[in-house]
Amino acid sequence: MRRPYPMEGLPQHVTVYEVGPRDGLQNEPATVPAEVKAEFISRLADAGHKVIEATSFVHPRWVPQLADADELLGRLDRRPGVRYPVLVPNERGLDRALAHGVAEIAVFASATETFAAKNLNRSLESQFDMFEPVVARALEAGVRVRAYVSMCFGDPWEGPTPVSQVVSVGRRLLGLGCYELSLGDTIGVATPGHVTELIEAFDATDRLAVHFHDTYGQALANTLAALQAGVTTVDASTGGIGGCPYAESATGNLATEDLVWMLHGLGIETGLDLDRLVATSTWLAGLLGRPSPSRVVQALSKG
Amino acid sequence: MRRPYPMEGLPQHVTVYEVGPRDGLQNEPATVPAEVKAEFISRLADAGHKVIEATSFVHPRWVPQLADADELLGRLDRRPGVRYPVLVPNERGLDRALAHGVAEIAVFASATETFAAKNLNRSLESQFDMFEPVVARALEAGVRVRAYVSMCFGDPWEGPTPVSQVVSVGRRLLGLGCYELSLGDTIGVATPGHVTELIEAFDATDRLAVHFHDTYGQALANTLAALQAGVTTVDASTGGIGGCPYAESATGNLATEDLVWMLHGLGIETGLDLDRLVATSTWLAGLLGRPSPSRVVQALSKG
Repeated sequence: MRRPYPMEGLPQHVTVYEVGPRDGLQNEPATVPAEVKAEFISRLADAGHKVIEATSFVHPRWVPQLADADELLGRLDRRPGVRYPVLVPNERGLDRALAHGVAEIAVFASATETFAAKNLNRSLESQFDMFEPVVARALEAGVRVRAYVSMCFGDPWEGPTPVSQVVSVGRRLLGLGCYELSLGDTIGVATPGHVTELIEAFDATDRLAVHFHDTYGQALANTLAALQAGVTTVDASTGGIGGCPYAESATGNLATEDLVWMLHGLGIETGLDLDRLVATSTWLAGLLGRPSPSRVVQALSKG
Repeated sequence: MRRPYPMEGLPQHVTVYEVGPRDGLQNEPATVPAEVKAEFISRLADAGHKVIEATSFVHPRWVPQLADADELLGRLDRRPGVRYPVLVPNERGLDRALAHGVAEIAVFASATETFAAKNLNRSLESQFDMFEPVVARALEAGVRVRAYVSMCFGDPWEGPTPVSQVVSVGRRLLGLGCYELSLGDTIGVATPGHVTELIEAFDATDRLAVHFHDTYGQALANTLAALQAGVTTVDASTGGIGGCPYAESATGNLATEDLVWMLHGLGIETGLDLDRLVATSTWLAGLLGRPSPSRVVQALSKG
């Protein structure tokens, strides 16, 4: 065991919000059977995860990989003390989630006009009409709601997203009653100063999480900046799965293992067992038929 | 052009010390002809590099890829204002460098006993007997000397390297007259707090450079920590080449392009043209027969 090397001004504990089973798998072309997904989630809990986003109630037409959400939730081996949020796009999705007794959901908003149109078929403004009844009914049922905000740093059509625009979208979601915002760098373009600027502009650091993609290799440096700005919840995906699986070297979400290597090196507690995470990613890479993009998984699964 | 997002406490300008032609190529199994190496170096200068480590006068038995150092230096299209240091292991190597009128050399030291034995066939203490006459004669001839210190954060045999031991090795090299130390994380295990601790322990930040490998995905986060600690020279390798080429997903040096994406995003001047760097890496990847490990190169060379 290496001794940790703490860095001034960082938190003592970080919550790793694991998105592998949902955000990671949703773009995989090979269908993963529900029982394998259930085993995946069990292995993640065995490795110490306390928050595992399990699946999504998006219409199967859009995300065929997660069409088995009902079956998966039926099979889920729920552990005490572990949260299993599910993504819910609309009231129809909420009905399905409530039928399964889900305790926590996440809604998915856009920080830009173009992505709101493409992903939600709404305008930047009218997306809130969709979220409002979902959040209200969820809270009424005692269900906690997280809000993802995508394209917080830029989108492919509009370029950099104005910080004030992200803050405006995010504040409205908090105002609806969401307990946390996950600020997403969906296309991976952010750099650390942009992260700091956005977080400081919110002035609500305790309700922010960050969600970085590693498209340009910036995810971990941006995470460091977010921790320095006071954020203590970081989204990550087992083995770095996610993103576009059709590219030869798919670069998706920040890999949980690379994040944990940094956090543990800094002496920050996560409750996670790195060896078990690497074993899970190696197992999953075998099933998906391609190596994990995580550098840590590549390094530790050799030999 | 995206507007930059500066971060407090970072330098305005960073010197990227390009090690691709030497550290990057030296482990490549496919022999790259001298004329291609010369073209590679010309392309790097075209992209704005002002320091390009050109080759090494290590014995060809150890690094067959760089056995053509004499031929390469003869072919080099030297540009005004660009430095072309070469690695020199001993007095024999220095003689060859001086014969070519080289203006700057680098020596290669170890921070650990075991790596000194394995890489230099010396003890931690006796390695200085080898460097002393090289540095003295180089300085006498008006040649600047940089010193690499490898295994500054850990080695595979001894675990973490004590900070005080690295400082002791580094100070002796500065004492011999080296103008700069390049602190190497040869096996890529460092995390940001370790970087800060080592840099602060030196109390000579203006004479330090950092040299990170991305084995565990930490290179760019560690670079951010080094910049925050005041370092302004960062080693990087075009396209991230280097490291072990026999592994399916070789992770080598910090990729110049990933570094430049971050630096430019932070509004830090480098004098480098990212598009030209990516084009050079794409060209080189074609010659080496495998994709660049750089995330930026992967992202920008698609389509």
